[in-house]
Amino acid sequence: MKAVVLVSGGLDSTTCLAMAREKGFDLYALTFNYGQRHDHELNSAKMVVDFFNIQNHSIIDIDLAQFGGSALTDQIDVPKKRDLSDMADIPVTYVPARNTVFLSLALAWAEVLGSFDIFIGVNALDYSGYPDCRPEYISSFEKTANLATKAGVSGSSFRIHTPLIDLTKSEIVKVGMDLGVDYSLTSSCYDPNQEGNPCGLCDACYLRLKGFKEAGIIDPLNYSNQ
Amino acid sequence: MKAVVLVSGGLDSTTCLAMAREKGFDLYALTFNYGQRHDHELNSAKMVVDFFNIQNHSIIDIDLAQFGGSALTDQIDVPKKRDLSDMADIPVTYVPARNTVFLSLALAWAEVLGSFDIFIGVNALDYSGYPDCRPEYISSFEKTANLATKAGVSGSSFRIHTPLIDLTKSEIVKVGMDLGVDYSLTSSCYDPNQEGNPCGLCDACYLRLKGFKEAGIIDPLNYSNQ
Repeated sequence: MKAVVLVSGGLDSTTCLAMAREKGFDLYALTFNYGQRHDHELNSAKMVVDFFNIQNHSIIDIDLAQFGGSALTDQIDVPKKRDLSDMADIPVTYVPARNTVFLSLALAWAEVLGSFDIFIGVNALDYSGYPDCRPEYISSFEKTANLATKAGVSGSSFRIHTPLIDLTKSEIVKVGMDLGVDYSLTSSCYDPNQEGNPCGLCDACYLRLKGFKEAGIIDPLNYSNQ
Repeated sequence: MKAVVLVSGGLDSTTCLAMAREKGFDLYALTFNYGQRHDHELNSAKMVVDFFNIQNHSIIDIDLAQFGGSALTDQIDVPKKRDLSDMADIPVTYVPARNTVFLSLALAWAEVLGSFDIFIGVNALDYSGYPDCRPEYISSFEKTANLATKAGVSGSSFRIHTPLIDLTKSEIVKVGMDLGVDYSLTSSCYDPNQEGNPCGLCDACYLRLKGFKEAGIIDPLNYSNQ
């Protein structure tokens, strides 16, 4: 059975991809070039897809930067050393409606492929407080997808798989290591330096480092600050 | 108040735009270049936006043709003189998940603009049987939008306006004429000839011509067959 898997090149989506492969799906990797400030994310996505020897990889350009409004696509500073204890606070790195845009395009591709399975590596525990990573959002999108499509109204059902949603970052790292993921290929930082080295200080670096530490595993990346 | 309005250059979305203007919204027009076979749609969208003197027009490129699977983006023949009495039959002109992709991007722009109003000219009466034109789909997308976004979880509510959803094509034409729409600028045909003249035989032409006829108004377009 075919599955479309969203692959950003980060730790979460790479682990999600490994989990979809473990379940025996025929994988179709989907990556977005959405005007994010760091091209190295795209390179990581390509390396990860190669690593897993996946033949089908679509990279779709969408110019979300045209709309502005996020530190990831706009000229807004990425916050460093933020207090993550208050998860109710949605940070400026939030990209408006990003997962809805990504899942919609995954749905379009899945429908053409005759696939009913879409994997997305969202995580509602060790995350940055984005609303479109929560289970209630995913469940609502799944309902919408089944009403939206020819396949859905014909009696088949789309399923949005979120195998990481209840895992802590350290559990994600452990699962990925067990499945043979090479995390040196992945890229999580919101604000890497010129050489592509992660900053070690943004939310994404903080959560990643904490996850590796709690898993008792050394993160293979070279951080510019730590 | 700001509103994002999806504008394809067709009869329905142009009428929808006129209705949003009538309600007093500050208009932000959004058009997609999604690999449709007919560039003349984009030209119509630009002319319509100029006609209404709208300052804000985003044209977003998305390569849906990369996924294939539709007569509108792929090398599949557009059906002519189809029997439209059986609306349960979804035709090959259906573009997978199109309205979900379009509404997601409208949502992204609306959130950045601080707008909570999105207009889409879908119509569930005289239509081609696409699942993503039905009221139950729109209502589900609206719920998903409010769960997806920072604005939605902050207590504000997005609304997806569908002012045409219960209108017949002839009612749409009459409303538009009352609001001063110049339908000679619009373009509805799925398969126009080299000069951009509508074929008069596809579903879209059939429904448009029937609408004008029932409204007792002459369609200003020059059809290549009729």
